[in-house]
Amino acid sequence: MSLEQQFLDQLRWRYATKRMNGTKIPADKLQTILEATRLAPASYGLQSFRVLVVENDELRKAMQPASWNQPQIVESSQVLVFAVRDNLSEADVEEYLADIVAQRGVTRESLEGFKGYIMGSLNAADADGKRAWATKQAYIALGFAMAAAAVAEVDATPMEGFAPDQIDEILGLRAQGLRSVVMLAIGYRNAEADYLTGAKKVRMPAERFFINR
Amino acid sequence: MSLEQQFLDQLRWRYATKRMNGTKIPADKLQTILEATRLAPASYGLQSFRVLVVENDELRKAMQPASWNQPQIVESSQVLVFAVRDNLSEADVEEYLADIVAQRGVTRESLEGFKGYIMGSLNAADADGKRAWATKQAYIALGFAMAAAAVAEVDATPMEGFAPDQIDEILGLRAQGLRSVVMLAIGYRNAEADYLTGAKKVRMPAERFFINR
Repeated sequence: MSLEQQFLDQLRWRYATKRMNGTKIPADKLQTILEATRLAPASYGLQSFRVLVVENDELRKAMQPASWNQPQIVESSQVLVFAVRDNLSEADVEEYLADIVAQRGVTRESLEGFKGYIMGSLNAADADGKRAWATKQAYIALGFAMAAAAVAEVDATPMEGFAPDQIDEILGLRAQGLRSVVMLAIGYRNAEADYLTGAKKVRMPAERFFINR
Repeated sequence: MSLEQQFLDQLRWRYATKRMNGTKIPADKLQTILEATRLAPASYGLQSFRVLVVENDELRKAMQPASWNQPQIVESSQVLVFAVRDNLSEADVEEYLADIVAQRGVTRESLEGFKGYIMGSLNAADADGKRAWATKQAYIALGFAMAAAAVAEVDATPMEGFAPDQIDEILGLRAQGLRSVVMLAIGYRNAEADYLTGAKKVRMPAERFFINR
């Protein structure tokens, strides 16, 4: 079977797992998911968010009441918390430019025009606008993480239902200049307990979802 | 090589292609990209956006000046335009519930509580909030589309740099209750013309990007 067909089959296999069984994800599979997340593209290449990999049981117990008491928080193997820069600034851009210099072997001077483009975008946005922009980049990475989990046959549940301020407090995010925007619980399904296991995936039919021009 | 390793290799192969050569994508590979996009998960399963598949040359020529004159618009095989519902409403939710009834074979009555959850979220948001929420779901699908393009070894360029009002006008989106939020040009690289072909991919080192807890 072609790689493309295998990939689509894995996307059909995945579903938003409501109950997990606590089994830990093998290190190589966790690494696949994290590496795909890190490889996700971002506008200008600027990764304006971080990913917390929360495995500690006490922390996850504390996070559960701040997440509508959803069981995946504690039944998962890890919870990935996508957190955007609270106030994306020139320092973030300089850090990125230093990465380009180090990894691509170009001079810092050659990137001055590129810096001007990025700063122009940043300076045109207020704090809310910058966070919204960073959030969109984080959602691309969320997509890559879910696709990678499917490929690794690891279950995953994207979660928007939580109180960001409380999660930030529990994880100490504000002190690091970060704000949580979305989470992904990863682990293994508890097929007996999960009413969605085996339910047919529902998607909008292609003839309505796509508009050809 | 394992499926996981092949998938990561394809993610490393991809890059934001700045110049394309006009070659058309074979039908089966285009289908892979579109099907992955359609399979992308969304909050509540509600696909609050559509994807325009723009191939028409005249339309793409008209779109180019509204997209900072970026050449990928006309040098690509297709441009996918992700467009969110302008005013997500009960009618969208009912359409989705009808899809669940048709595809999962449950009764409409059994979904009344689920409808209540979704409507509660929608009613708590103003028009801007609903569009922002729909946009985040569209970005998950953008991530799936880019991952699928990489798997199919098709080049792809995500594009935020365009004038949404002008693109909406050219494609007649407002009349359909839609607003463009992000685009993805798909096609094949012009390696001679593209200064980024062969440039090393730059990503934040894992030790900074991930925070273990």
